[in-house]
Amino acid sequence: MRTTAGWQAKSTDGTATVLRRASLERRDLRPDDLAVRVDYCGVCHTDLHAVRGRDTDGGQGGPLVPGHEFTGVVTATGPGVTAFRTGDPVAVGNIVDSCGACAMCRAGQENFCHDFPTLTYGGTDRVDGSTTLGGYSREYVVRERFAYALPAGLDPAGAAPLLCAGITVWEPLRALGAGPGTRVAVAGLGGLGHLAVKFAVALGADTTVITRSPDKAGDARALGAHGVVVSTDPEQTAAARDRFDILVDTVPAPHDLGPYLRMVALDGTLSSVGHLGPVTVETFDLLAGRKKLSSAGSGGSGSTAAMLAFCAAHGITADIELLPSARVNEALDRLSRGDVRHRFVLDLSDLD
Amino acid sequence: MRTTAGWQAKSTDGTATVLRRASLERRDLRPDDLAVRVDYCGVCHTDLHAVRGRDTDGGQGGPLVPGHEFTGVVTATGPGVTAFRTGDPVAVGNIVDSCGACAMCRAGQENFCHDFPTLTYGGTDRVDGSTTLGGYSREYVVRERFAYALPAGLDPAGAAPLLCAGITVWEPLRALGAGPGTRVAVAGLGGLGHLAVKFAVALGADTTVITRSPDKAGDARALGAHGVVVSTDPEQTAAARDRFDILVDTVPAPHDLGPYLRMVALDGTLSSVGHLGPVTVETFDLLAGRKKLSSAGSGGSGSTAAMLAFCAAHGITADIELLPSARVNEALDRLSRGDVRHRFVLDLSDLD
Repeated sequence: MRTTAGWQAKSTDGTATVLRRASLERRDLRPDDLAVRVDYCGVCHTDLHAVRGRDTDGGQGGPLVPGHEFTGVVTATGPGVTAFRTGDPVAVGNIVDSCGACAMCRAGQENFCHDFPTLTYGGTDRVDGSTTLGGYSREYVVRERFAYALPAGLDPAGAAPLLCAGITVWEPLRALGAGPGTRVAVAGLGGLGHLAVKFAVALGADTTVITRSPDKAGDARALGAHGVVVSTDPEQTAAARDRFDILVDTVPAPHDLGPYLRMVALDGTLSSVGHLGPVTVETFDLLAGRKKLSSAGSGGSGSTAAMLAFCAAHGITADIELLPSARVNEALDRLSRGDVRHRFVLDLSDLD
Repeated sequence: MRTTAGWQAKSTDGTATVLRRASLERRDLRPDDLAVRVDYCGVCHTDLHAVRGRDTDGGQGGPLVPGHEFTGVVTATGPGVTAFRTGDPVAVGNIVDSCGACAMCRAGQENFCHDFPTLTYGGTDRVDGSTTLGGYSREYVVRERFAYALPAGLDPAGAAPLLCAGITVWEPLRALGAGPGTRVAVAGLGGLGHLAVKFAVALGADTTVITRSPDKAGDARALGAHGVVVSTDPEQTAAARDRFDILVDTVPAPHDLGPYLRMVALDGTLSSVGHLGPVTVETFDLLAGRKKLSSAGSGGSGSTAAMLAFCAAHGITADIELLPSARVNEALDRLSRGDVRHRFVLDLSDLD
């Protein structure tokens, strides 16, 4: 076994769960494994839910080390590795294995693996049955098939959030055909939303931000958006009726989809990302314009590589607040209050 | 005023609402009106809901004459009518007016009129404020803009259901691109479903019927379907996972969409038709394959005309049971039990 340091959730006695520094084990390299020195890891809403979810289960969920969007450098390779060498910059997202055999895996959409993909943390390793521990740590061991070459020219700290926040909005934008001549709206300007705006603009779509706060307009314009709809202003929402071919809804909590659906154009699609759980829609809101409700999450290997190449070509990384990893609990607290612009990234060098 | 005969819902004293023969008034022709002798009118699930819904409101809903898919012959025209002459065969669907000014009306999608279209029965006339009375009657007066020339060669009795059941499935099939190379599934083989199968086959799509009853397989094949999935057979549903680009769900009652969504292919769409009301879906069922949920209902003027031309070219009409209109209550009873193959049509000549 290899040992490294990381930030692990500890059971608590009635107070909120916090992450504490811990020594972690990593597996010895299998033939197709890479050891990655983790330099930067983004802080995702999923991490927050995973940590805070332990408040109610008394920490019975097993060991938890969050983190599933990170960049770093290859420090060792298994004997069968062909695509990477020691010293290569790499990126890893929220999937580290899949069955490899089902129709979705064969289509390069391992995120939809029929046998469920192995998640970067909280997953069950397909070989030894251990629980995977995430990227809030100084080292990660991963199959080369689920590591991506980090293109030159992309800042590795700002690139880390591309691997979850980025790919989660990239896939629906591409699948729904965002580009010149399409009208794209993005609801929410968090980690996912601000990247969706950058992508849609770079893809050539007419891009609008939907926000509850008029004071986000400047922020939206700075990201490249061509317009803003303030969703609390009835005049603006009425004017936006049936307007957007694609509406990417990144609001990370349950909410009424009706007002957003009414802004979707004839034959357009509302793509709900970043929120899992049941959603209820009035059939009439879909019917009145043959509108579609979709959802997306994570990404496959093919589209992840394509997204990274696109980001390199267009100079796209996330807008981040970089914190030493020792301040991870502060980052989670602030994220829970929506106090981040637009993504926290942890610098893990302080674990050395 | 003009007078005609029709079948009207009467208030009851605790027993089920029935339709009784009544004398009805029709408006004098406005400049762009046609008077239509109604020969054949289909019996839609909406009619059943409208009639039975009166059991609980004590008949307080105003006068009700159902019927919104009918064919007949023009018997008189207003002075401004240009597209029709006395003696022309015509068809009328479930919309008889709309605002004409909104973006949806301008796109020929009057069914999605922002000001809500005027329904063929139970609607409010935009000129005189009266409640519209439907096609279970010997005469109907309609703006020429919402009447369609019935193509030669189409049996007028079998063509009547095209105007509601037909267009309701035609629009999503066309909007979603059903044709050669696409895999279409149709759930339910009622009035809508059996027409969806005929359309999908004629459009060149690989067409499968999803049914709970193995004994519907012969029926499905007779309609032209290339395959059948028996939804109560776990082996068959597992084999159909992620398989259909378009799944048209015509089941006319609330039901779990999950099993159908799991049969939709990557980037495919489940189109729910024929049922109104809230639907709840697990985001994960959409997410796992970037699947889309859509809905459709009724049709616009452009696509209705296109559908009728397609039906004439391909010899498509509904498979019907033709009954004298005096047996309308029997038709509604049998429809409520699903005992029809595949659509009742009333012959209104017995009202003379």
